[in-house]
Amino acid sequence: MTMVDPVPETLKFDESGLIPAIIQDDESRDVLMLAWMDREAVRRTLTSGRVTFWSRSRGEYWRKGDTSGHRQYVRSVAMDCDADTLLVRVVQLGAACHTGTRTCFTDREIAALLGDPEAD
Amino acid sequence: MTMVDPVPETLKFDESGLIPAIIQDDESRDVLMLAWMDREAVRRTLTSGRVTFWSRSRGEYWRKGDTSGHRQYVRSVAMDCDADTLLVRVVQLGAACHTGTRTCFTDREIAALLGDPEAD
Repeated sequence: MTMVDPVPETLKFDESGLIPAIIQDDESRDVLMLAWMDREAVRRTLTSGRVTFWSRSRGEYWRKGDTSGHRQYVRSVAMDCDADTLLVRVVQLGAACHTGTRTCFTDREIAALLGDPEAD
Repeated sequence: MTMVDPVPETLKFDESGLIPAIIQDDESRDVLMLAWMDREAVRRTLTSGRVTFWSRSRGEYWRKGDTSGHRQYVRSVAMDCDADTLLVRVVQLGAACHTGTRTCFTDREIAALLGDPEAD
């Protein structure tokens, strides 16, 4: 029996063997977080229904929610036009952020001048 | 007169001096693309109302839409809990992707086993 690798051959990993994965809540459409996957983490994410990352700081696989209970269930996975970024839509249980906020971007706004398409 | 740098000192850039920026449509909430900024691109994005990236392939600043007309107007900017990723919400004129699709992830889905929170 031949096993077919579910990870597209065209997918591009950086010089550290990693690809950034944007995680989006499939229902609220909030952007929850960005984390990194190596080829094996992508494979596990595509075949297990649960999002798995590679932790750069701890140097290990990290199946989101195994410690916190805040699991991420895969609803869809897509790559971008350059095949070097993933977008994973999920059902998020509990808070996505380890700090307890709903997303990793919640309450972390940076002051910016807003653009106005009408005035340009 | 002292100029205050609008780029937070806590913001973390990688070994190449870059930070990934997730671009989200502020209205549809679609994730449009991911691109990279150096400190100066972040500064220009925060102060001009228009999203500016650093092009790794071309080695130059790239104010989105200057060539294509598909400009991105800043609605908000936030950093994540690790201060190493940006989320920029924008008003997007036209297609976000240089291939002409609305987002860089449109029609680029990868087959995946879906997770089921009820079954776990």
